[in-house]
Amino acid sequence: MFPDSVFITKDNIPGPTKEEIRCLVICKSQVSKNDVVVDVGAGTGGLTLEFAKRARLVYAVDKNIEALHLIEKNLNKHDLSEKVNLINKNALKALRDIENIDILMIGGSGGDLSSIIEKGHKKLKKKGRIIITSILLETPIEAIEKLKSLKMEIEVINVSISKGNISKRGTMMLANNPITIITAKND
Amino acid sequence: MFPDSVFITKDNIPGPTKEEIRCLVICKSQVSKNDVVVDVGAGTGGLTLEFAKRARLVYAVDKNIEALHLIEKNLNKHDLSEKVNLINKNALKALRDIENIDILMIGGSGGDLSSIIEKGHKKLKKKGRIIITSILLETPIEAIEKLKSLKMEIEVINVSISKGNISKRGTMMLANNPITIITAKND
Amino acid sequence: MFPDSVFITKDNIPGPTKEEIRCLVICKSQVSKNDVVVDVGAGTGGLTLEFAKRARLVYAVDKNIEALHLIEKNLNKHDLSEKVNLINKNALKALRDIENIDILMIGGSGGDLSSIIEKGHKKLKKKGRIIITSILLETPIEAIEKLKSLKMEIEVINVSISKGNISKRGTMMLANNPITIITAKND
Amino acid sequence: MFPDSVFITKDNIPGPTKEEIRCLVICKSQVSKNDVVVDVGAGTGGLTLEFAKRARLVYAVDKNIEALHLIEKNLNKHDLSEKVNLINKNALKALRDIENIDILMIGGSGGDLSSIIEKGHKKLKKKGRIIITSILLETPIEAIEKLKSLKMEIEVINVSISKGNISKRGTMMLANNPITIITAKND
Repeated sequence: MFPDSVFITKDNIPGPTKEEIRCLVICKSQVSKNDVVVDVGAGTGGLTLEFAKRARLVYAVDKNIEALHLIEKNLNKHDLSEKVNLINKNALKALRDIENIDILMIGGSGGDLSSIIEKGHKKLKKKGRIIITSILLETPIEAIEKLKSLKMEIEVINVSISKGNISKRGTMMLANNPITIITAKND
Repeated sequence: MFPDSVFITKDNIPGPTKEEIRCLVICKSQVSKNDVVVDVGAGTGGLTLEFAKRARLVYAVDKNIEALHLIEKNLNKHDLSEKVNLINKNALKALRDIENIDILMIGGSGGDLSSIIEKGHKKLKKKGRIIITSILLETPIEAIEKLKSLKMEIEVINVSISKGNISKRGTMMLANNPITIITAKND
Repeated sequence: MFPDSVFITKDNIPGPTKEEIRCLVICKSQVSKNDVVVDVGAGTGGLTLEFAKRARLVYAVDKNIEALHLIEKNLNKHDLSEKVNLINKNALKALRDIENIDILMIGGSGGDLSSIIEKGHKKLKKKGRIIITSILLETPIEAIEKLKSLKMEIEVINVSISKGNISKRGTMMLANNPITIITAKND
Repeated sequence: MFPDSVFITKDNIPGPTKEEIRCLVICKSQVSKNDVVVDVGAGTGGLTLEFAKRARLVYAVDKNIEALHLIEKNLNKHDLSEKVNLINKNALKALRDIENIDILMIGGSGGDLSSIIEKGHKKLKKKGRIIITSILLETPIEAIEKLKSLKMEIEVINVSISKGNISKRGTMMLANNPITIITAKND
């Protein structure tokens, strides 16, 4: 994984997703080198870069043009821009033009979660996966309901990680906010 | 419990202990109205005030005179100063002059944890309790070792609490740092 | 708080609510000695007993008659039966006959959460509080939505507690399942 | 990652390490295909198999011969036995005969943690890593102290994961025990 500290960030752009969450998302996604990934709500590009290192092609989708500029900087910094298509549209529009998705990653949905899942599911390959991360209580419920209706196999985990700050006084444990990760596969 | 927001705070003084942790400490302490409490490393006075509301007498001990001034302000704000003796000494010196302790609360030990427990234990009444809270990984281990050697009955819990920030977007869960609470009684 | 181990339990009856969660519920409820409490989905009676120790009157409501028998045993064991009315109805029916509630505690709702909140809210005194505990992801969302529509002031916390098992090998931390506690007051 | 359910287990053998913890260990280890890994306290072989899939050679060390038989079964089941040397010795003895270690993984130390770290550190390649996982409070402290004395760069994380059990009633979150993961590199 890239350490959190290597990413160029911007105050008004969310992310990057913390290293440990990126790690778990990558594991759950079972990404492999021929995969096509769509990263919706790509933000700072934390997950975009991780997928770009491991997949064939990543579509990084964000309706905020500033986010895409930031992702571009991060891709260039790590020589990964060739693997990534930057798309400055909302997710539903972006998904119209993409086919044969192996992994649909949804880190932000702008209130359209159910529709994005539904539309994305139609573009998903037979063994495709959908992954949703959220810091909100409401998102997992909306996701589970929609994924159930699509008869996908669903896994939900909630992850709380604290990190030690080692000093002379001792090791102070500082909490990251809890994140829910939902993984769905066609059954 | 007092809400976190009612305390007067100061940048360089730790605390107040978060409401939920104060609540758990008060429950674990089994404080009752005739109790004498010693609050070591009293900081902002969060626990001092909670004990003052419920006990007969609280000694608030802090080697930092600024902490004691801050506690005094918080006590005055809630009309609890009559119940509290403020002691501007390190804990070991303060304990010399106190007898018949029902509850020894250690929120900060300045590196003297084992000695404070040992000395405090001698001043503890037969059914007395010692409670230690810590954000450090090392403190619980040092406490458990010493409390074991004193043949006390020990309980250790680690508490992770996240709090919802409710907005139009949804309920964002924000983590507090994990706290370990150690409670010991004479067996 | 009563230690978890003092409760008489039965395999098919949920509870008792763990000591630390009972502690936090009691703090959040701000129960005092003149309060009337309704405990919906009372189960083993863990919270019923805690409220009975501190309030004027508790209605313990459970649609399962076995639960009520179990609660009765636990009340008798701790000499608290005089403070508690046992009601073997579903919550909506039980609430019809109760007025002037200070605290409505909902630990189980049998699928009627929104209606119970709505009905209970009508019977709530001006400064009344509603508290909901849940191990399910869905319950907090349903509760928050309904409580918002009633213009109540809402607090949501998620609590993860692990408990140390102290042996010669060391202190093994064993996790309790995470519980969400929602507290609402009239604004 | 292998799902938890694919491992053959035995009542008296610890493990397998849960999928999410294996995932985080693999990320933190930065294992690559030319690496030599030593897995001390290999237990059921959960981490052994993950490393075997990704490294050149894994030494699985366990003083319990039954554990090694179990690991062998798991390796055979997934066609990974060629990558693994099974060593039925205590860790200190096993480390005598191994050189040029890229990754030293310590999942169990039988009370010899400091010595294993010290000895393993001598056999570590220049860019080698040591990873320690523990469910005990004491282990991280002992590890941090020793790793500090070796001037290694240390990271400590504590991981609490709960997993959703989706049923008609809703999504019940069930907690796994919290695990501490310590990662150290030569500075």
